[in-house]
Amino acid sequence: MNFIHENFLLHSRTAENLYHSYACDQPILDYHSHLPPADIAANRKFANLFEIWLEGDHYKWRAMRANGVAEEFCTGNAAPYEKFAAWARTVPATIRNPLYHWTHLELKRYFGIDDLLDEHSGKSIWECANAALQNEELRTQGILKKFAVRMVCTTDDPCDDLAHHRAVAEAKPGFRMYPTFRPDKALLVNQPAAFNAWIARLERASNIAVTSLQTFLDAIKQRHDFFHSRGGRLSDHGIPYCHANPCSDREAEAIFAKARGGSAATATEHEQFASVLMLFFGNLDAARGWTKQLHLGALRSVNTRALKEIGPDTGFDTIGDWPQAEPLNKYLDLLQRENALPKMILYNLNPADNYVFSAALGSFQDGVTPGKIQFGSGWWFLDQKEAIEWQLNALSNNGLFSRFIGMLTDSRSFMSFPRHEYFRRVLCDLLGRDVEKGELPNDEKLLGAVVRDICFENARQFLGLEL
Amino acid sequence: MNFIHENFLLHSRTAENLYHSYACDQPILDYHSHLPPADIAANRKFANLFEIWLEGDHYKWRAMRANGVAEEFCTGNAAPYEKFAAWARTVPATIRNPLYHWTHLELKRYFGIDDLLDEHSGKSIWECANAALQNEELRTQGILKKFAVRMVCTTDDPCDDLAHHRAVAEAKPGFRMYPTFRPDKALLVNQPAAFNAWIARLERASNIAVTSLQTFLDAIKQRHDFFHSRGGRLSDHGIPYCHANPCSDREAEAIFAKARGGSAATATEHEQFASVLMLFFGNLDAARGWTKQLHLGALRSVNTRALKEIGPDTGFDTIGDWPQAEPLNKYLDLLQRENALPKMILYNLNPADNYVFSAALGSFQDGVTPGKIQFGSGWWFLDQKEAIEWQLNALSNNGLFSRFIGMLTDSRSFMSFPRHEYFRRVLCDLLGRDVEKGELPNDEKLLGAVVRDICFENARQFLGLEL
Amino acid sequence: MNFIHENFLLHSRTAENLYHSYACDQPILDYHSHLPPADIAANRKFANLFEIWLEGDHYKWRAMRANGVAEEFCTGNAAPYEKFAAWARTVPATIRNPLYHWTHLELKRYFGIDDLLDEHSGKSIWECANAALQNEELRTQGILKKFAVRMVCTTDDPCDDLAHHRAVAEAKPGFRMYPTFRPDKALLVNQPAAFNAWIARLERASNIAVTSLQTFLDAIKQRHDFFHSRGGRLSDHGIPYCHANPCSDREAEAIFAKARGGSAATATEHEQFASVLMLFFGNLDAARGWTKQLHLGALRSVNTRALKEIGPDTGFDTIGDWPQAEPLNKYLDLLQRENALPKMILYNLNPADNYVFSAALGSFQDGVTPGKIQFGSGWWFLDQKEAIEWQLNALSNNGLFSRFIGMLTDSRSFMSFPRHEYFRRVLCDLLGRDVEKGELPNDEKLLGAVVRDICFENARQFLGLEL
Repeated sequence: MNFIHENFLLHSRTAENLYHSYACDQPILDYHSHLPPADIAANRKFANLFEIWLEGDHYKWRAMRANGVAEEFCTGNAAPYEKFAAWARTVPATIRNPLYHWTHLELKRYFGIDDLLDEHSGKSIWECANAALQNEELRTQGILKKFAVRMVCTTDDPCDDLAHHRAVAEAKPGFRMYPTFRPDKALLVNQPAAFNAWIARLERASNIAVTSLQTFLDAIKQRHDFFHSRGGRLSDHGIPYCHANPCSDREAEAIFAKARGGSAATATEHEQFASVLMLFFGNLDAARGWTKQLHLGALRSVNTRALKEIGPDTGFDTIGDWPQAEPLNKYLDLLQRENALPKMILYNLNPADNYVFSAALGSFQDGVTPGKIQFGSGWWFLDQKEAIEWQLNALSNNGLFSRFIGMLTDSRSFMSFPRHEYFRRVLCDLLGRDVEKGELPNDEKLLGAVVRDICFENARQFLGLEL
Repeated sequence: MNFIHENFLLHSRTAENLYHSYACDQPILDYHSHLPPADIAANRKFANLFEIWLEGDHYKWRAMRANGVAEEFCTGNAAPYEKFAAWARTVPATIRNPLYHWTHLELKRYFGIDDLLDEHSGKSIWECANAALQNEELRTQGILKKFAVRMVCTTDDPCDDLAHHRAVAEAKPGFRMYPTFRPDKALLVNQPAAFNAWIARLERASNIAVTSLQTFLDAIKQRHDFFHSRGGRLSDHGIPYCHANPCSDREAEAIFAKARGGSAATATEHEQFASVLMLFFGNLDAARGWTKQLHLGALRSVNTRALKEIGPDTGFDTIGDWPQAEPLNKYLDLLQRENALPKMILYNLNPADNYVFSAALGSFQDGVTPGKIQFGSGWWFLDQKEAIEWQLNALSNNGLFSRFIGMLTDSRSFMSFPRHEYFRRVLCDLLGRDVEKGELPNDEKLLGAVVRDICFENARQFLGLEL
Repeated sequence: MNFIHENFLLHSRTAENLYHSYACDQPILDYHSHLPPADIAANRKFANLFEIWLEGDHYKWRAMRANGVAEEFCTGNAAPYEKFAAWARTVPATIRNPLYHWTHLELKRYFGIDDLLDEHSGKSIWECANAALQNEELRTQGILKKFAVRMVCTTDDPCDDLAHHRAVAEAKPGFRMYPTFRPDKALLVNQPAAFNAWIARLERASNIAVTSLQTFLDAIKQRHDFFHSRGGRLSDHGIPYCHANPCSDREAEAIFAKARGGSAATATEHEQFASVLMLFFGNLDAARGWTKQLHLGALRSVNTRALKEIGPDTGFDTIGDWPQAEPLNKYLDLLQRENALPKMILYNLNPADNYVFSAALGSFQDGVTPGKIQFGSGWWFLDQKEAIEWQLNALSNNGLFSRFIGMLTDSRSFMSFPRHEYFRRVLCDLLGRDVEKGELPNDEKLLGAVVRDICFENARQFLGLEL
């Protein structure tokens, strides 16, 4: 039997039935990704397996480095095939890592390859895949259609002109592409050079002169409105923990002026200013009926030398362990007090905090929108079977599993769509196990409906994006 | 087969045998609950299923809110049947949440109902249950007898006159009801209005004029003595983490005077004063041979608007993530240094801290009382299968499972006694699994005895309450 | 069937095959232990089961105390057989604790005993074991050979003269014994008496007069060189969390002078000084190609009275819950910036931090040495099946399981070598489960090789100790 077979990860009749009858045909609503809009708009064709698979994948680089592969073959100057060969040699060393499953699931779904990748099979896989990549079906738009992606949300700077999004909207390629408003740089009062450079971009994009905190906020709101006009209904923030210690408007103005003048805010000032901004962003989203995403818990760029030599987002980030409970609850409470708590998706990166997250959001459900505050699916280091199950169990035990809006790729790669299949298999297997153990009623109608909801329908209804 | 059947949650022959031969007939010693003493003393009859089941259950309200049910149907003014119907509609959405199991276990054990509750079955279940509630067997005292509850401990303010406890003691209804001494309000120097209002009650209850810290402590001790005279042998504290930074007596006196004068103690002063009081309470318990319970880790009333509009204990509390190891060990050590470490039960609300708790208490076992410092069973958000197993495993790996004093309801509801059954099934299933895997010897005598001990006998011996 | 049988802990055909064909015959490379070098050099014979099994085992004492056994029978003055009998009575109470498995595995492997130990079997087991201990095979050197221990690393103070190591090296007994450099006392500027007493020893050992911080470091380096000349290739540190806040050299000199003058460093000064030293130690190890071990997360000697009456390392230590992510990443980064990051093994004591650890080290792999930064195996409270699996899973999901250097005893007892067998059974069972569930390919060649690597080969290659 091939490693990736029909019932991969499905260990009971119930699981098999739920997956094949209810999950696998559901379309994909990929509401959070880091795919490059330009590649989608241009319907990029990939020259070879390196381009589509290795070019930007820091998961693979981390595994290769840990296997003793030199940087030259990760982010360096080696030739594409050399890099691929280094990866192929590394694959057998990744057993028990999610990369082992993803690798073979991706080779199977994109190229129909059943061979396990290693130094022996590498050459023929390279050739087979490269040939297939010449087909229309494996250009970016073809891929989205092939995987029944009805909608993809990219992650965008507020200063972006969203030209690619407009182009795709106009081309009507059979799927939707919407932007996500990610204003992380608006918080950088502790890095005045980056902060002011960003404001210069913001001024150009908004056509508003930023001369004060108020005009700064006005310009941001202009961009929010603009994203809304382009169909955007989601914002996103990557922060270590919630900022929930706002200062007065006057103090915020002073911190803003200080950073504008080129002086870095202190840690306390940064926290206060970021808190003011995060409340402002919450108000923007609530007013428009958007959904706010918080990606919490990442400790980024921990390897200074690698940051200098290779740059950010290249595999030198990790999991933090800051206290999350008080700031998270306080942030939600502050918005709630202002009657400005938007729909939210809270993503947690430290699995030790799963219960803190899943319990917290139960205190802020509003009795109007089902599942208004969502516990987001396993993210980054948690995007694998063990941690997906932990997230589903924490959500189930402290909240409503049935209202979960499900999976997303969170990926920079066009070869990550099988993450949805992977998640759906884990989901159905979990339910199958519950049924086999008598912990759920053996009620196909009930469970089939929940599976469909989690795969697609809940997200569709919750997010309110036009399809 | 019905969802709740004879071998619900029991997945091996060993588990079935242990449960049916050793666990299920053991009486219940419910040593921690929040049942209203008045309802027990008055042998309250419940008019309908709403009164006994929904009236005060914040677990259900949280699930309903998360399902988009308006507050009117949770804590609001809707009619009892309307509220019940809203709950019935929510039940299918709670699959994988413990409410789904509890709901059907409770309907089965109290009313013999096998139907799964949902919007279709709701009406007939309402009628069936309401009819049954007219029977003597389902009045409060009948319920306690039906479930073989030999003893129930309520949770009481030290100012309580325990009149209901005396009434029950005199009536000799076939079970015991004892008070638990819970002096949380004695720590409220940071909330002078509440603090002084409580002291006024304390003065009346104790007939001692509180004119100084010493007379304050005298009055508290008088109440402790009084609880002892009513059969109480347990105290309880709900605190986020252990207070273990005592100040000098003189400083404590000053903080006390400040609060008495209407000024709020600072955070540091509160911590110091609370530490002094917690050491005092430890001494009271140790001197009397009582058992002290610490409920650690709750972050309460996080939703300010809900607190104002709906009040406390209505489903807006959550799990905190404070450091626990140093204060917990220090508190135990400070008492130990004074030769005043009582028997203790430490309840942990954040499952990430299970090992911190289960390891900590191993350093304070005294070689006299078996299992002197207990790792309390899964509490609140952890009162479900996944977390019960985690607690049992942490306890087992870092301590003596065989000395565990077992389960309690911790409930405000008279319909929660099946929590003991639930726990016992999980317990027997875990042992059965161990035996099937050869990780425990297949020794029925040994394991049956341990099951009986954990279900009843250990608690009886440990707590020393008169039965 | 006996409790410890051929397929103990092995629950699938694959697991059985991997264990019996690939794991069980691998020799042992016990690269971290606390065995007394003198006992090995002298080829100590043990008078009875107490001496070899109970004399120094704080795991057993904790269990006995928790079972109500008086200190007299733990560390006190009771006769050896009395103490053994108290332990025998306690054993049945340890079901589900790792002691229950270890106990019977040890009795089986050392003495061929299949009886379960309890108060009834105790006497005959005592006699049987005592008789066997008279054989050459159960003297210390015989034990090492019996268990195919090719090498054992002890844990040593830098001031040690390593005479026993030299004696063993010269005797060529069929295994190697190497020292490990553990300079914890060099950080004790907050305990000047202990600090200065240690420096006096250091001066004698190094023959260097310590008159300044520089001469202090010189003397330490002299000992490091000396350990290297004796074959040592490992250092070790027991610290609560990483010290990663170094001060300037001048400030460090002032802190050093203060402690030398008998005044205790403040907490901040201690942290700064310890950070400077830890960077120095990292440089020493990196320069020599050594492997640095960090044992993080222990909260020691929490029971003050026990510390005074019984002393350290007697079962009154526990698990801490300090933030680990930022200091750990910063320490690795500071060394990396200086181009002085040695090979490392990071041992974590709080299982809630497993993902923080396993993710952190992925940012510091260097693309040269496979698995350069290792996530060390489950330690102390985590040295049991549940936690071994957690460590293996965290390592697998966030890194390369296949590069893991595997197990060690970390023990003070000559009866702990079956910990390797225990680990290997857990390891093979985990892989067997993966194969049975189709999560790993059923490729005996691949998996058998990985098993052999983890049992022995990886450690041999990684550590570079002469065999």
